[in-house]
Amino acid sequence: MQIIGEKINGTRKRVAQAIAERDQAAIQSLALKQSDAGAAWLDVNAGTHPNREADDLAWLIETIQAVCETPLCLDSANPQALRQVIPITRKTPMINSISGESERLEGILPLAAQFGCPVIALAMDGKQIPPTADERMAVIEAIFEATRAAGLPDERVYVDPLAMTLSTRQDSAVIALETLRLVRQRYPQAHTTIGLSNISYGLPARGYINRYFLALAMAAGLDSAIIDPLDREMRAALITTELLLGRDRHCLGYMRAFRAGLFGGEGN
Amino acid sequence: MQIIGEKINGTRKRVAQAIAERDQAAIQSLALKQSDAGAAWLDVNAGTHPNREADDLAWLIETIQAVCETPLCLDSANPQALRQVIPITRKTPMINSISGESERLEGILPLAAQFGCPVIALAMDGKQIPPTADERMAVIEAIFEATRAAGLPDERVYVDPLAMTLSTRQDSAVIALETLRLVRQRYPQAHTTIGLSNISYGLPARGYINRYFLALAMAAGLDSAIIDPLDREMRAALITTELLLGRDRHCLGYMRAFRAGLFGGEGN
Repeated sequence: MQIIGEKINGTRKRVAQAIAERDQAAIQSLALKQSDAGAAWLDVNAGTHPNREADDLAWLIETIQAVCETPLCLDSANPQALRQVIPITRKTPMINSISGESERLEGILPLAAQFGCPVIALAMDGKQIPPTADERMAVIEAIFEATRAAGLPDERVYVDPLAMTLSTRQDSAVIALETLRLVRQRYPQAHTTIGLSNISYGLPARGYINRYFLALAMAAGLDSAIIDPLDREMRAALITTELLLGRDRHCLGYMRAFRAGLFGGEGN
Repeated sequence: MQIIGEKINGTRKRVAQAIAERDQAAIQSLALKQSDAGAAWLDVNAGTHPNREADDLAWLIETIQAVCETPLCLDSANPQALRQVIPITRKTPMINSISGESERLEGILPLAAQFGCPVIALAMDGKQIPPTADERMAVIEAIFEATRAAGLPDERVYVDPLAMTLSTRQDSAVIALETLRLVRQRYPQAHTTIGLSNISYGLPARGYINRYFLALAMAAGLDSAIIDPLDREMRAALITTELLLGRDRHCLGYMRAFRAGLFGGEGN
């Protein structure tokens, strides 16, 4: 299970401020803390200023790479910005994201193929998220046609089945889980990922919903997730679920996490 | 999802003491608290004194029924004791448990058929728990042959797939989950249940393992569980998972639990 650390995101107020003020220490601290907590990738999102995006991304990348070797996940829908910054990354970055939209596929796929980048692929092709698992699978099939045509092997594609909030649709999680199972079946070489927290948007005590959704999604085939690795309860959910799914030999990961105090919050 | 409240169990020291001292208030408090917390059934186990079991069970049943209408789950492998006490129950009790062992089937099934009792059926027929899901299903098939022959409809059978501890077998949970899925497929009218806490025996921070196992088991088809309904985090797991599985219309159950403070422990 790969964690994609979500914290370096310019749509968050404190990160936006750090970017604006070129506060290296703030960004480096987020990079190091997430890496120490087990992030396999660091998502890097420069925020919502299209005219500054390439410069801000380049600064973020250099700032992070000065202290940390964890590969980056470049969170941008802007092919021009991506083309400028990919060459300054030290390790092959992931790109977050493509979708079934032809504009996004045409802009980003050639870059992913040229630089060998894994890509996150969202199961949607317009502004709306398709309501059913079958409709999402139709979009996903079209995406795999395009990634294969571009020469990107399936194992570089991280499919995000998309989760809408449960507050507006009772079956939001069920549909995301069903889509995960279908992706696992039909594209066994591909990876899966998910932006976990949408599921609980508009509801209270969101941490509970996000954590149990992570567990159910892992059982349905999720093998990476975009989460906050500094959230102890979330990491406890992840490590406990790995144990339950039979992936933790001799309970070593679980016992190590226990000794490190991860389960201190509740015990028993 | 039905909760079978596990707390009135004479193998627990304080309950054994309350039984020995005929402390009605202690037992009645456990009955009322579990019912208030949503238990659909109250497990009643008189402990490990075979020569006193019928008397102790009778006293427990009368003590509980004096204050509480929740139906009982008579936790005994002793047909003589069960035959004596079933007539004093006010609502049809569940019997916990039968297994594939012929002695247990022959002793208890006629009682269940005569009184119309639901029965918990353990997926084992000897002292050992069968190691694979297929072997457990073979036992379960033999049990359904016997329950059907005795005239007990499938919907009165609560199959417990059995969970061994993860500390000795890495795939313990995976096998229990697979068995649940198979029972759901092959016996769609039957119920399922599980003694949840065996899964974490010998490991630290057991509550985490038990709770995430509950969530995964519910996704695999579990529709009742023998748990402590006074364990807030366990109930939070149950209610959150019901929400995620699309069974909580308009999030009403989740919102009610939130307003009642169930998620107060962690928030976020």
